[in-house]
Amino acid sequence: MPQELVLALDAMGGDHAPAMVVRGANIARVRHPNVRFLLFGDEHTIAPLLRRYSKLARVAEIRHTTEVIGANDKPSLAIRKGRQSSMRLALDAVDAGQAHGVVSAGNTGALMVLARLVLKTLPGIDRPAMGTIFPTQRGESVILDLGANLECSARELVQFAVMGEVFARTVLGVTRPSVGLLNVGSEELKGGETLRQAATLLRESGLSINFHGFIEGDDIAAGTVDVITTDGFTGNVALKTAEGTARLYTEFLRTAFKRSLLARVAYLLARPALKKLRERVDPRAYNGAMFLGLNGVTVKSHGGTDHKGFANALDVAIDMLNQGVNPKIIEELSSLGLQGLQESRRAAL
Amino acid sequence: MPQELVLALDAMGGDHAPAMVVRGANIARVRHPNVRFLLFGDEHTIAPLLRRYSKLARVAEIRHTTEVIGANDKPSLAIRKGRQSSMRLALDAVDAGQAHGVVSAGNTGALMVLARLVLKTLPGIDRPAMGTIFPTQRGESVILDLGANLECSARELVQFAVMGEVFARTVLGVTRPSVGLLNVGSEELKGGETLRQAATLLRESGLSINFHGFIEGDDIAAGTVDVITTDGFTGNVALKTAEGTARLYTEFLRTAFKRSLLARVAYLLARPALKKLRERVDPRAYNGAMFLGLNGVTVKSHGGTDHKGFANALDVAIDMLNQGVNPKIIEELSSLGLQGLQESRRAAL
Repeated sequence: MPQELVLALDAMGGDHAPAMVVRGANIARVRHPNVRFLLFGDEHTIAPLLRRYSKLARVAEIRHTTEVIGANDKPSLAIRKGRQSSMRLALDAVDAGQAHGVVSAGNTGALMVLARLVLKTLPGIDRPAMGTIFPTQRGESVILDLGANLECSARELVQFAVMGEVFARTVLGVTRPSVGLLNVGSEELKGGETLRQAATLLRESGLSINFHGFIEGDDIAAGTVDVITTDGFTGNVALKTAEGTARLYTEFLRTAFKRSLLARVAYLLARPALKKLRERVDPRAYNGAMFLGLNGVTVKSHGGTDHKGFANALDVAIDMLNQGVNPKIIEELSSLGLQGLQESRRAAL
Repeated sequence: MPQELVLALDAMGGDHAPAMVVRGANIARVRHPNVRFLLFGDEHTIAPLLRRYSKLARVAEIRHTTEVIGANDKPSLAIRKGRQSSMRLALDAVDAGQAHGVVSAGNTGALMVLARLVLKTLPGIDRPAMGTIFPTQRGESVILDLGANLECSARELVQFAVMGEVFARTVLGVTRPSVGLLNVGSEELKGGETLRQAATLLRESGLSINFHGFIEGDDIAAGTVDVITTDGFTGNVALKTAEGTARLYTEFLRTAFKRSLLARVAYLLARPALKKLRERVDPRAYNGAMFLGLNGVTVKSHGGTDHKGFANALDVAIDMLNQGVNPKIIEELSSLGLQGLQESRRAAL
């Protein structure tokens, strides 16, 4: 039986919070009987919601606070003024050993900065990265960074590769995950100096990583590799471009089925098939970006998601804890002699 | 009646050359009666093909050469050894005033480097950019750069914005095209220094451009702006990611319609609707990346395309010539006092 896990939830983060947080936790409770929840937020709004789910209420505890970090607050403001905010207190709970991980659908920038401030990076990691799982022609892959670090050094890219590899191995269950560096061509001489340095490090530094080499944008959805490593600027643009393209395609499909009476009849018959398709590209199914490289599991849910999406973000955090992703990242970095890849600790935030 | 145009075709470039080049030219001949063709390549293989299309033969002329730049040749090799290649001779024809524009499905890097060497950049332009039209929820937009310049200065991004704006106005027929800078957020403070500088230049330099501001990856397919401006690294990754996602979606759709007998029946009825859908996302319909900012129109066709795709690349070149894109770029740059944005001429290639 798996150990008991405690998740600290920022119950006030997200467009539909706290209702979707409570309902999402109730879905997760059924899926994961070993998990308890600390709900950080306004008990006057959370308590009535919790009363509707008596089984959840038995494994959940409200930690009252009225402060909330706004969706548009700057991270710097969140640091200065957010000490009693639901997000900050949830992170503090992990730091104090009261919870194993945090899930928030609140302000991404604030969560990133506060998580790093409160939890600190793992030994061997200069900067944490934001990653996510997404569907491909071959199954699922993981891509990182998605915007935590707009520009990255070769060393940081290598650290991301190690973290992504551990994640794919432990959470996705891939035996020997292949790792690619996102570039504008697959030839060795393509791309800028940083990318070429990172490729050299991955190829020659004695890492046991299954390094595929450079990949291109269309390799992401093709599933050419299990782990896509890139800087945060490129990863953010690529992931959002993919999301936008999927929406465009869905819209084109909808229009196509409205063109004629025959098409409308075909649509009625095709509905079960199209439902399956929608499930495969449902962004809620892939909700939950993880911050890798921190002392403590932190997962960011999409702000606009509903309870089903939030439950999936909880799954990501629980999977990471059950599989011991963080201890394995530390182990991997130290056993592979990667300490040389760590820069001197950066100035505190 | 439009003036007579002459296109120089690299008849040997592309996986299915020269057959698809000749067949593509024959399609373009019907669409554009004012166009003549110079076919650069091996007359022993081209002449028999041309004999099949007697009407094309009347407006086409073979310029014999046996040299070809290979798909994997490095651009530096193309410069040193490719002087008699079909690609180089086609570009020379434009430089010598024998043709108005070039279309090639050959090696992209070699075409970029040779086009810049032979044709030189337009006054006011530091570096040419590669752009393409693509479908969006609102119609069509243009994106540049796609890989000609992996890193760009703010000034270069502004020049790309001007070129893209002129293209959208003249070729796409948009009255007052909106221009966006691709970034990781739409807030003014997002992104790196270069992007913020480019935004300031576009906002404050007295340009008559309809500058929308920063956009994100999902705005590309949404059609939020008519012109997406970005550096070549990001543009290349974004466009290929979109292509890969469209292929993934198509594959998911195909699988969905195979799941059950009912789905197969639905598929038969839905075929006309799905055919319309396929046409809207057919990459051949958007084949033809233009190099903007050169003295002479240069269009790169996808190497793997067929005659229909190649004909569309010819359309792009012909539209650019008919609409006078290059004279209008020069006009725009000079009338807007953008000379200050030009860097000193870079060292020759």
